[in-house]
Amino acid sequence: MPLREVIAALDARYDPALAESWDAVGLVCGDPDEPVGRVLFAVDPTTAVVDEVIGTGADLLVTHHPLLLTPVHGVPADDLKGRLVHRLIRAGAGLFVAHTNADRAPGSGVNAALADVLGLLDARPLEPTTADPRAGLGRVGELPEPMTLSAFAGHVAAALPTTVGGVRAAGDPDRVIRRVAVCGGSGGSLLAAAAAAGADVLLTSDLKHHPVSDAGEVDGPALCDVAHYASEWPWLPVAADRLSRDLAGQVEVAVSQLRTDPWTWRAGA
Amino acid sequence: MPLREVIAALDARYDPALAESWDAVGLVCGDPDEPVGRVLFAVDPTTAVVDEVIGTGADLLVTHHPLLLTPVHGVPADDLKGRLVHRLIRAGAGLFVAHTNADRAPGSGVNAALADVLGLLDARPLEPTTADPRAGLGRVGELPEPMTLSAFAGHVAAALPTTVGGVRAAGDPDRVIRRVAVCGGSGGSLLAAAAAAGADVLLTSDLKHHPVSDAGEVDGPALCDVAHYASEWPWLPVAADRLSRDLAGQVEVAVSQLRTDPWTWRAGA
Amino acid sequence: MPLREVIAALDARYDPALAESWDAVGLVCGDPDEPVGRVLFAVDPTTAVVDEVIGTGADLLVTHHPLLLTPVHGVPADDLKGRLVHRLIRAGAGLFVAHTNADRAPGSGVNAALADVLGLLDARPLEPTTADPRAGLGRVGELPEPMTLSAFAGHVAAALPTTVGGVRAAGDPDRVIRRVAVCGGSGGSLLAAAAAAGADVLLTSDLKHHPVSDAGEVDGPALCDVAHYASEWPWLPVAADRLSRDLAGQVEVAVSQLRTDPWTWRAGA
Amino acid sequence: MPLREVIAALDARYDPALAESWDAVGLVCGDPDEPVGRVLFAVDPTTAVVDEVIGTGADLLVTHHPLLLTPVHGVPADDLKGRLVHRLIRAGAGLFVAHTNADRAPGSGVNAALADVLGLLDARPLEPTTADPRAGLGRVGELPEPMTLSAFAGHVAAALPTTVGGVRAAGDPDRVIRRVAVCGGSGGSLLAAAAAAGADVLLTSDLKHHPVSDAGEVDGPALCDVAHYASEWPWLPVAADRLSRDLAGQVEVAVSQLRTDPWTWRAGA
Amino acid sequence: MPLREVIAALDARYDPALAESWDAVGLVCGDPDEPVGRVLFAVDPTTAVVDEVIGTGADLLVTHHPLLLTPVHGVPADDLKGRLVHRLIRAGAGLFVAHTNADRAPGSGVNAALADVLGLLDARPLEPTTADPRAGLGRVGELPEPMTLSAFAGHVAAALPTTVGGVRAAGDPDRVIRRVAVCGGSGGSLLAAAAAAGADVLLTSDLKHHPVSDAGEVDGPALCDVAHYASEWPWLPVAADRLSRDLAGQVEVAVSQLRTDPWTWRAGA
Amino acid sequence: MPLREVIAALDARYDPALAESWDAVGLVCGDPDEPVGRVLFAVDPTTAVVDEVIGTGADLLVTHHPLLLTPVHGVPADDLKGRLVHRLIRAGAGLFVAHTNADRAPGSGVNAALADVLGLLDARPLEPTTADPRAGLGRVGELPEPMTLSAFAGHVAAALPTTVGGVRAAGDPDRVIRRVAVCGGSGGSLLAAAAAAGADVLLTSDLKHHPVSDAGEVDGPALCDVAHYASEWPWLPVAADRLSRDLAGQVEVAVSQLRTDPWTWRAGA
Repeated sequence: MPLREVIAALDARYDPALAESWDAVGLVCGDPDEPVGRVLFAVDPTTAVVDEVIGTGADLLVTHHPLLLTPVHGVPADDLKGRLVHRLIRAGAGLFVAHTNADRAPGSGVNAALADVLGLLDARPLEPTTADPRAGLGRVGELPEPMTLSAFAGHVAAALPTTVGGVRAAGDPDRVIRRVAVCGGSGGSLLAAAAAAGADVLLTSDLKHHPVSDAGEVDGPALCDVAHYASEWPWLPVAADRLSRDLAGQVEVAVSQLRTDPWTWRAGA
Repeated sequence: MPLREVIAALDARYDPALAESWDAVGLVCGDPDEPVGRVLFAVDPTTAVVDEVIGTGADLLVTHHPLLLTPVHGVPADDLKGRLVHRLIRAGAGLFVAHTNADRAPGSGVNAALADVLGLLDARPLEPTTADPRAGLGRVGELPEPMTLSAFAGHVAAALPTTVGGVRAAGDPDRVIRRVAVCGGSGGSLLAAAAAAGADVLLTSDLKHHPVSDAGEVDGPALCDVAHYASEWPWLPVAADRLSRDLAGQVEVAVSQLRTDPWTWRAGA
Repeated sequence: MPLREVIAALDARYDPALAESWDAVGLVCGDPDEPVGRVLFAVDPTTAVVDEVIGTGADLLVTHHPLLLTPVHGVPADDLKGRLVHRLIRAGAGLFVAHTNADRAPGSGVNAALADVLGLLDARPLEPTTADPRAGLGRVGELPEPMTLSAFAGHVAAALPTTVGGVRAAGDPDRVIRRVAVCGGSGGSLLAAAAAAGADVLLTSDLKHHPVSDAGEVDGPALCDVAHYASEWPWLPVAADRLSRDLAGQVEVAVSQLRTDPWTWRAGA
Repeated sequence: MPLREVIAALDARYDPALAESWDAVGLVCGDPDEPVGRVLFAVDPTTAVVDEVIGTGADLLVTHHPLLLTPVHGVPADDLKGRLVHRLIRAGAGLFVAHTNADRAPGSGVNAALADVLGLLDARPLEPTTADPRAGLGRVGELPEPMTLSAFAGHVAAALPTTVGGVRAAGDPDRVIRRVAVCGGSGGSLLAAAAAAGADVLLTSDLKHHPVSDAGEVDGPALCDVAHYASEWPWLPVAADRLSRDLAGQVEVAVSQLRTDPWTWRAGA
Repeated sequence: MPLREVIAALDARYDPALAESWDAVGLVCGDPDEPVGRVLFAVDPTTAVVDEVIGTGADLLVTHHPLLLTPVHGVPADDLKGRLVHRLIRAGAGLFVAHTNADRAPGSGVNAALADVLGLLDARPLEPTTADPRAGLGRVGELPEPMTLSAFAGHVAAALPTTVGGVRAAGDPDRVIRRVAVCGGSGGSLLAAAAAAGADVLLTSDLKHHPVSDAGEVDGPALCDVAHYASEWPWLPVAADRLSRDLAGQVEVAVSQLRTDPWTWRAGA
Repeated sequence: MPLREVIAALDARYDPALAESWDAVGLVCGDPDEPVGRVLFAVDPTTAVVDEVIGTGADLLVTHHPLLLTPVHGVPADDLKGRLVHRLIRAGAGLFVAHTNADRAPGSGVNAALADVLGLLDARPLEPTTADPRAGLGRVGELPEPMTLSAFAGHVAAALPTTVGGVRAAGDPDRVIRRVAVCGGSGGSLLAAAAAAGADVLLTSDLKHHPVSDAGEVDGPALCDVAHYASEWPWLPVAADRLSRDLAGQVEVAVSQLRTDPWTWRAGA
């Protein structure tokens, strides 16, 4: 099957029109006229992931994070990212990015997958798009049974890939959590939306000291922080499975087993 | 002793001219003509810290973080920060901030204290000011003995206040660390300076996924992340002690024992 | 009655949504949970007015001009405005501002009061808001009887508080005035709207040389300049009376008798 | 004498390089190759002043205020300013502007003339240029004898042309004035410089409510406000006389007797 | 007939509301109350064209290009453009500009005239205005018979005034041309619109190397470049004839016979 | 010889620090560690030129114009420029750009080569860099013998590659030319510098109607316009020869014989 048709299937699931204006989604390298037999899904286009693409003979790498979010005037091989482009092109493998469009996609996107893996009921976008109330950033939904914040942190730790940082929570450990807001990736800016939606906790990543400290001073959702990688990983098997089915099994799909969370060690606490 | 003289002593140690143009340092509330008998030092001006000020009868609270970094048109008491201003003014207590000027101060500032508590030798600023090579952001210095990255993480955990997140490291745990760069608070932007200084590791806080992931793809310093609060806490006893001596013991000083790191719980990992 | 309810009554009259985006209206200091027995109204929150608040035991000062139009990082007592905040907070008195929202308010605002005190008939906004044609900046209305520009200046002088600068007019003193445009405060930018409304004169304050000179070179309204304070003063008794009635007399109201026009002397002419 | 040589003489006195970057100085219309016999000086290029140019057969009008400060795409005669250009060109008369360059000129400029007419001793610029300490905006100098603020207002009224607004003063009428700062035209922004220079009063024009009100709340200079026209008029006879002498009497010079202050009437006070 | 009525007729044909926001259309000099007997049309208001205005006793010059596109603070006669203003005003002649409004005019504008002179059928705007689909920039229409690109270049050369640069074409000389897009003046930015309209060629002027080179690398319209002057000249006789008829022959009209293309010589090729 | 060493030789001749801040010079694709045996020089990186690279087995293409002046988020093969990147990478060929740094280079750059091919004596930069008076944009020099403008146009046509547009001149064909200013590429903005240098003519490319028309109205240099490609071509053999010699003949060099001027036909004139 030509790459062109694989791209069409991905674009149908993750409409590029849903991406932020500053984003860099779509095909980074590869020739739409060449055939694709095997597709690998990963969060980050790192060197190790490209090794896996080439080592496993994949023809297409689909990642959530853009390789070239900052635009470039060239892809020379003495630059980290240019070297990956050279290796992929010479190996005949393409790279395709679904980033904020995958975050916002209504049915099988990053936030929908995160809500599903946590078992949230009746999940809807925290920040719906104006055109489609089922699409948008973040999700908010209900836990099947209330639990304390400390129990919720444990529930999250069990549901997501293990990382060295684990799951941090800010708030009274005994607070009862019923309604949960989530946002894959750096979602601290959705705190006001989570509060407006009546969420008892917002789960996201890359939270910094000052907003968490301020949040602790006012009534509002507790906060839960996980590795950026961990919050987006649940999308990979969903996206791989959907693509396989959308293309009636004509391409083989796989999810990278590499942990691309960059933290390798923890001490203390 | 009038507050005016206490302020003069603090300004002499932490020259306001060293602060960033966007910063908000100096006296937030309080009357320079009123007397000060007891000064409390803390990282953050939170509600709990203000409770401690009032409960212990302190006349002045000195914090590292500004209460009103975003400027305001009023301090009404139904706003979190306005309420703290009302409580302090009514209790006759002042609030004084030494933020990026304390970060840059040459001898007894935030970064100097962090380097000292880790035992770094020959520490000098990572980003010196043009006027004074002994002043500036961050510090870089040498460990007395080389150690692995995993051992270094343990060393940091032992030297700094305990927090639920502990100490995370990115890089090969067996990498040998000789030269250490540190930056109290959010210092990810100093990575290039740390690399240029030949540091084997940069220790700071509030590091997000993308820069850490990119750093892992190139040669350069390993990274070590601690709680923002923990990285700045070592300054408190140093500053309290200096002020006491600068004022010949005419004011009583104390360091808040409250942990203002907002994370309260951790699960997983 | 708690301050919260007094604020609600003021906000109902002077909807904060009518304020300019750059404005600073609402509660500047004070605790909405504390009781209010007496409210003082003034144009400017000066030191003398705060003396009057404290001297007369008022619990709330309502002014037209903001104390902190330029936002601040602190309210230290060695700053003029910070000192007023300290004095009010320690005296248990709040400060509430109704500025451009009071200018635009439909029924009992600054411009409506100015039109009323001059006896204008059928007054309507010069620059209506899009949402409500009865609200907006300035007013234009008809004199009961035509009069010359010089007579109109005398009429204005008699209707408004006396100030050292008096009332200046630009235009032929014998010009007949039938339709009058007014704008409390600095309203020179409404000249084109006054011309479009067919006004024979625009009365406002703070007019500078160049626009007045240019206006004299073309057909259009004559101009009349009074003290900024004088143009806004008529609102004070109206607002005080409305608040008293809105709260069914449960708070005592008073209008400051201090003249806050800063000019103290005149010579020549 | 060709207009070119008259322009050269004016540029030598009022160096165009001293003008603000936003200003519009120099020749507005007229042909440098045509002869000039008579030059008229005025503050403003109004219709009445152009009538006087044409009625008296002047070949050049020199004004302080620019005709076309806002640049234009044409000078059609159905526009006020375009009509003046048509009338001047058809009458063979040029228009030359010396504005902020005349304000800053060291020896015979607008501010120097204002200081002289008030009898100030040892007058020097309030805001000197970096290149020449004798040039710059405003002047500050000493009165030969101290006088009260009310007496100073009377002194100003006697020294400057009479206008309907007269002279307004803000401050204690009995305050003793020794050192005087002046700035022809709209000079409110020089208040800090006047304070730094130790002035007891700043005399300027076009002062608005808020800065005068704020100035009244702090220690600092008293304020004195006169008509913009009146503050700049003293320059006219000085400039006319200097030009006549610079050109050895080869051109006839005259000062317009028209009062271009636009205020025509005053009532009240 | 007063100039005012001639302007009204021109504005009716070339609605000023159609002009770009940055443009400078309408009356540049002249008095709407003075009579007009003869009108001259030209592309550029150059010195030679003004000589022709004065030499032929015309009362109004109508040009396509603005004299003062960059706005001015004066029109002194020692400036090229100021000198032309002086000469026109003294000769009693007005200057009127119809620029981007004439480009966009639906029926007798610059682009409509260019399409007509090339014999295009069913011509419609390339970039219609939102308000009127018959108005807008450029035109696209059909040739009566297909021809090769080289034949089309010859057809253009025969239809437009001769210039030293002639007609340049980019593309395969044997490519068959059926649908033609045109834009008088600098129309390179309309290439995407021409491609979207299915044009086989875009004819315009002032094309630079890079966009033409890029266009040659992709499928899309061929390009044809003529002198800017030549592309706009066809409008002159159309506009002159329309004005004569609109005013029922009460003014005499003429088209300048001067070639205002600035290129005077060609060598090589 | 590794590509790294070829790049070092090119950077030594065409210092990247001389490039404009907006430019995109240096290696676009290719691996500095791979060997280079043959280098091809061309003005533009077009499809035909890349065909030539691959057809002739060149390992490196050096062009004057950047392929990716507008930075990109990817180089997919369904984009014109991405396809060229894929073809070059798969063929093992690099692309290197020397653009405004080659324009400014002192001894063997684009402008120096253009001055040389025209036989100018004592050529120096029109716009020297501050650091090195021998480097900079444009050149100005003397003809060995004066000639008329029409003869000069013929001289240029004979010296540069033939293009369909030939050489256009603006000015009196009989004007005598002694001093010549040149600027390869789009150099119209250097007209003022050419006038200041006393040049009788400025030769450049991509000149548009309005600046040429304005130049014809004032005293100043005549203008001469050639194809952008033609003005930069003379650099190719110079650069190829210098590189060959700088590398002691260890790489083979060649100059593309393709004419990358996009104009293919001319009619009329």
